[in-house]
Order: sequence, then C-alpha cells, then structure tokens
Amino acid sequence: MDASAFFFKLLAILVSAKVFAEIFAHLRLPSVLGEVIAGIIIGPSILGIIIPDDTLYLLAEIGILLLLFEVGLDTDIGQLVKLGIQSSLVAVTGILAPALLGFWISNHVLNLPVLVSLFIGGTLVATSIGITVRVLVDLRQHQTTTSRIVLGAAVIDDIAGVVILALLYDFAVTGEVGIMNTAQVLGFIVVFLVIAPVLTKLLVPLIHKLYSGRRTKGMIPTIIVSLILLLAIVSHKVGAPEILGSFAAGVALARRFFLPLGSTIEHYSHDLAEKIEENMKPIINLFVPVFFVVVGASINFKVIDFGSVTFWQIAGVLTVVAIISKMVSGIWVKGSFRKKLSIGTAMVPRGEVGLIFAEIGKKSGIFDDLIYAVVVFIVALTTLFAPVLLRFIMKGEE
Amino acid sequence: MDASAFFFKLLAILVSAKVFAEIFAHLRLPSVLGEVIAGIIIGPSILGIIIPDDTLYLLAEIGILLLLFEVGLDTDIGQLVKLGIQSSLVAVTGILAPALLGFWISNHVLNLPVLVSLFIGGTLVATSIGITVRVLVDLRQHQTTTSRIVLGAAVIDDIAGVVILALLYDFAVTGEVGIMNTAQVLGFIVVFLVIAPVLTKLLVPLIHKLYSGRRTKGMIPTIIVSLILLLAIVSHKVGAPEILGSFAAGVALARRFFLPLGSTIEHYSHDLAEKIEENMKPIINLFVPVFFVVVGASINFKVIDFGSVTFWQIAGVLTVVAIISKMVSGIWVKGSFRKKLSIGTAMVPRGEVGLIFAEIGKKSGIFDDLIYAVVVFIVALTTLFAPVLLRFIMKGEE
Repeated sequence: MDASAFFFKLLAILVSAKVFAEIFAHLRLPSVLGEVIAGIIIGPSILGIIIPDDTLYLLAEIGILLLLFEVGLDTDIGQLVKLGIQSSLVAVTGILAPALLGFWISNHVLNLPVLVSLFIGGTLVATSIGITVRVLVDLRQHQTTTSRIVLGAAVIDDIAGVVILALLYDFAVTGEVGIMNTAQVLGFIVVFLVIAPVLTKLLVPLIHKLYSGRRTKGMIPTIIVSLILLLAIVSHKVGAPEILGSFAAGVALARRFFLPLGSTIEHYSHDLAEKIEENMKPIINLFVPVFFVVVGASINFKVIDFGSVTFWQIAGVLTVVAIISKMVSGIWVKGSFRKKLSIGTAMVPRGEVGLIFAEIGKKSGIFDDLIYAVVVFIVALTTLFAPVLLRFIMKGEE
Repeated sequence: MDASAFFFKLLAILVSAKVFAEIFAHLRLPSVLGEVIAGIIIGPSILGIIIPDDTLYLLAEIGILLLLFEVGLDTDIGQLVKLGIQSSLVAVTGILAPALLGFWISNHVLNLPVLVSLFIGGTLVATSIGITVRVLVDLRQHQTTTSRIVLGAAVIDDIAGVVILALLYDFAVTGEVGIMNTAQVLGFIVVFLVIAPVLTKLLVPLIHKLYSGRRTKGMIPTIIVSLILLLAIVSHKVGAPEILGSFAAGVALARRFFLPLGSTIEHYSHDLAEKIEENMKPIINLFVPVFFVVVGASINFKVIDFGSVTFWQIAGVLTVVAIISKMVSGIWVKGSFRKKLSIGTAMVPRGEVGLIFAEIGKKSGIFDDLIYAVVVFIVALTTLFAPVLLRFIMKGEE
C-alpha cells in the first residue's frame, strides 16, 4: 500500500470533479453530470488514472450515505407521507413497466434466454436515487411537490431494486423464488423505515447533552457520522439498502420532523439543527462528489464494441425501453403534462444500481460480454441524458 | 468488499475514540491517549473488532495529514525559525543519543548482531510527531516557546527518521551506505520546505478568486484538501515524509505567514483564513482521531510473550535507553530545568514511526519475533507514558 499513490488518486478525483462540476454549473446544467463525466474521463474509459478499488468504493459509499443524509435533513416527512399514494403509483409503474417490457422485449423480440431476459428486466427497474436527488438539488427543485413525489418514488424504487436483485439472484442459483422470505424482508424494511426516525429523534436530548458537556473537539461531526453509519448498518441488516438508513437519520434530525411528545425535543432541536448543518456541510460537500466520480469511473466504455451491429441492435432497442418505461411512470400524477413528464424523466437515470446489476449478472455468468456491454451503455446513457433533459423540462416548473 | 462491515469498523473507531478521549479529558489527561487506548482495546490486542487494513491505514494517513495541516495553520513560522538553533540542537541530540546508545547497548551489552543493533538504534530515533503535537494541543500548550522548540525539533527528527530508515534499509539490502544520495535527498527536502510554503502562499489570490466565482458547493474544503494532498505527494517525491507537505500547506495558509510582497495577499488572507478554519475544523476533527485509533490498533500486545525472561531483560534495558536518550535532548535549551525536561519528555513518544520501523525490520527478516515484540513494547510504553508524564511536568509551565 503506497499512501502517496492513493493521495494522487484522491487528488485527481477531487480536482476533476470540481473542475467539471463548475463547468456544468456555468452551462446551467446539473453539476452532478460534470462529476460523472470527470469520472468517465479519469477512469478506465479514457485516462485510466483511477481504477475504482475497494478503498475508493468505500469512500464513495460514505459519499452517497452523506448525500442521502443531507436530502433527509431537507425532507419534510409529513409532506412526503401526504404525497405517498402518488409516489407509490409512480414507483409501482416505474417498477412494473421496465421489468415487464424489458423481459418481454428481451425474450420475445431479441430472442434472449429467459434468465438473461429476467436479469435485464431487473436491471432496468432500479432508478439511481443518488443521481436523481442530486439533479433535483442541483436544479434547486428539491423542495417542490414534483420533487417530493420523485423522492418518495425513488425510495420505494430503491427498495424494490434490492429485493428484485435478491430474488433474481436466488432464482438464478436455486431455481426457486422465495416469496415468503421476500415478504418478510419487505416487512422488516417498512418497520425499520417507520421506527428508525422516531427512535433517532428520541436521541436528540442525549446528543444535546453530550454536546454541551464535551471536553474534546469534533463532538457534533463524530456523533452525526456515527449515527449515519449506525442506521446504515441496521438498514443493511434488515435487508434494505444502506442509504435508506442515512436518509432516515437525516429525516429524524430535520427541523420539520414532529413527534407526539414533540415540544420539549423541538426546544433542543432548533439550536442543534443549526450546529449540525454548520458542521456537516463541509464534510458532505467534500465526500459527495467522490461518489459520482466513482460512478463515472465504474462505467468502462472500453468494454463496448461500438463496431458491432448486434450491439447496436440490442442496445438501441433496450435503451428505448429503458427510457420510455420510466417516463410513463409519471402518468398517474395530478397536474400538468410537464409535471408528469418531469417526474417520469427524473426516474430515468439508472446509475450505480444498474452497474451493480451488470456486475452481478456478469460475475454469475448470466450476462455474456455483449449483454454486459449493452447494460453498461444503457446505464451510461440514461445517467448522462436524463439530467440534461430534466433541466430543460423543469425550466420554469412550479 | 462489504460496505456494511467497513461501516461497522468505522463506527467502532469513531465511537470508541470519542468515549475514551472524553474520559481522558475529564481526567485532565491528553485526550490523544484515550484515542490510542481505544485503538488498543478495539484492535487485535483485546477485542479484535478492527484489524487495520489498507483502507483504514489510508484513512488514518488522511487524519495525520490533516492534523499536521492544522498545526501548520497555528504555526508562526517566524517564531519557529527564530528558535531554529535551539530546535536543531534538541533534534540532533535526540537523534544521536538514541541512535548511538541504542546501537551500542544492543550490540555490546545485549550482544545482538550488528545489523539488528543498527535497526534498533534507528527505531529509537524517530519521535512520533503526531503524538507529540497532539499532546501539546490537548494540553493547550501549543503556542508556547517550549512547544515551538519541540515542533521544530520534531520536524527535523521526522526527516531524520525517514532518511535513516532509507539508509539502513539500503545498507541491509546492498551492504552499502549511499552518503551522496542521502545528501541529495536532504538537499531536496530543505529546498522543498523553504519553497513550498512561499509558492502556496502565492496561490492565495487564485483560491480567493475561485471561491468568489464558485457555482457549486464545497469549494473551500475541496481546494484545501486538494492542496494538502498535492503538497503531501510532492513532499513524498522529494524524499520527505508526506506529513511535512501538509504541514507546509498549513504554514502557508496561516494568518501569520509574511512575504516580501505581503500586503496585497494579506488582504485576501484574513477573510479566507476564517473561511478555511470554519470549513476545515469539522473535517479535521472527524479524521484526526482515526489516525490515533489506528496507531493503537497497530500495537498488538499479543505478539509479546510476557512470560519470557529474555523479553523482559531486553525490553527493560531498551525502554530505559529509549526514554533517557530522548529526555536528555532538552539539555541545550535556555531556561528552567522544568523547561528542559518538558522538551525532552515531549520527544519521547515513538508512535507510528517506531511501528513502521518494527514492521520493516520484521518483514526484511532483521528482527526476529522477540526483537519485534520488544520494539512494539517500547513504542507502546513511550507512546502511552510520555503524554501522562508531560501533563504533570508541564502543569503550570509558562
């Protein structure tokens, strides 16, 4: 292990992310796109300065935990619940449409084997919650009804992605589908999502006490990062994605989170919420781009044989499926066509979750090199173009 | 790679560090000691929750870079240079005494082979700049003359440690001593230490401009961390320890750093210095303890056979040598006996540098298990007891 070589990678990530984020922000495009492109440039696709390794993946994971924590902090959970039915309809459509259409087209039109087709359907389900919420934040649209519906749908979608992946993986290995097991996991996840923020909120007086009586530096960042890690671990234990744990931590510490026994806790909360924001912002802003650069660096365009006709046939068809099947998910939402379209478009990016599906599909032998390349291509395209599209659709929205 | 398992390790590090740091602070002992002890407890010596791996070492390295950056920020380089002669005398004594005494006792009294004795002498040289400066910060003594002399001496000592390690390693492998090469490296290091802060200071207007024109979040932490990494990499390239690079970055951005063309830069500096402190403090305070916990977790008491008489003989003699030979280094300093003693004691902790020597000695086959255990024991003892001793000696100092 050479610390200096690692520092160089980290330097390349931080500097390239900042340069491209600023360029994109000046072009009035979501800066997250600049960060992903920075990753594509310094990653194996072009310069090869960084090849994501365990350490970089783990730093990236911390980045996405912190992003979801920040989004949670800004989330009015009451509003989120109020829009729950619309979010659920968006999520369910955005799960069923790509899964069924992806499977059917792969199997019947492209004549791919059943298991491969199932896995492609699964890959097309998972919206990248990270890309989606960052785009909304970058566009300063994250406090609108549209965004709240998208956020709720993305959370449900993310849970579905993990559950479907587990189901498909089990099916590929054992040939059976564990419905009972799945129902149990879903039960755990729902219980966790309801209980975790409430229990965390009850810790606020304790955090306040620890902070007031501290004799060492860095009490707030240490407590908050520990809390985020703890909830991420518990979330993983109950079978949910880790980022939902950090989202729950953010929701619990948000100013707008009310409890029946609220008033005494609110008293501490306000003061503490300010301290938390002040201390966490630099840490969040430093780490979050690492995640998106690593996502970009995980997309390796070199695996794609752009000269292959078969590649273009399959990739063309499936990319259309991937985009259309998510864009229709906004159909149930009340409001203008532009609003429906915004919500559908926001659900399009597949990002890191699609790449995880691709990796597992490849490692388990279900995806051959061609299909793997197709999936990587779809992930890249949906991740890069949805934010741009969204920027133009959302212009002037609400 | 399981992200959740990694999160658990990180959680254990952050929580244990904070708990023990607070306990030690309440006992009016340096909190850094609590962090090292937390590492010993959760490390392989006792609980075995964390076994330092590449990722943890790299995070720890970031921690020590940040600590030295912070110390640099608080350093009045003018004062440091003014006390340069005294620092140099302390450093040279603190290098020669342990090297010569360590070698002579090992070779002539303990009858160890020449190469082993040379390596023991080398191991006894390297003061842990990390432990030393943290103790001074914890005791709120880091702005005194005593501390400035210690800091200067620790910097020189750290360079000497790296150079001696390289020399000894070359000698062990090739049987030759590259004096010319060493002189060249020393030349590079001196040039780097003089030029780096000046060049960095010249960047201040650029940093100010980037900050003012920013459109994305986190400009300050990104620029500062990038600068720290850059200087650490350059420092490594010229043959110096990486932490000297981050120290140079801190010195350059300190409020009290003056240049001939000073006034225009100072104009930006003041405002920027505040922003830098505000943004970097949470990041520094979060990461620094990771370093000390990893130091503690790198000390594995299980390698020591406490029932062995030979162990106690060698360890007893060499521990006395390790402590006495550094404590005499304060002899040249002007002032009271207590001041001389404070300075000598501050130079006693061997910490991570001693462990690096021990690891290299073991891996290259120069240290057998017994001598390795002795060195680990000496590192542990000097690291744990010097801070406590210093606390009592320094009570009421200046």
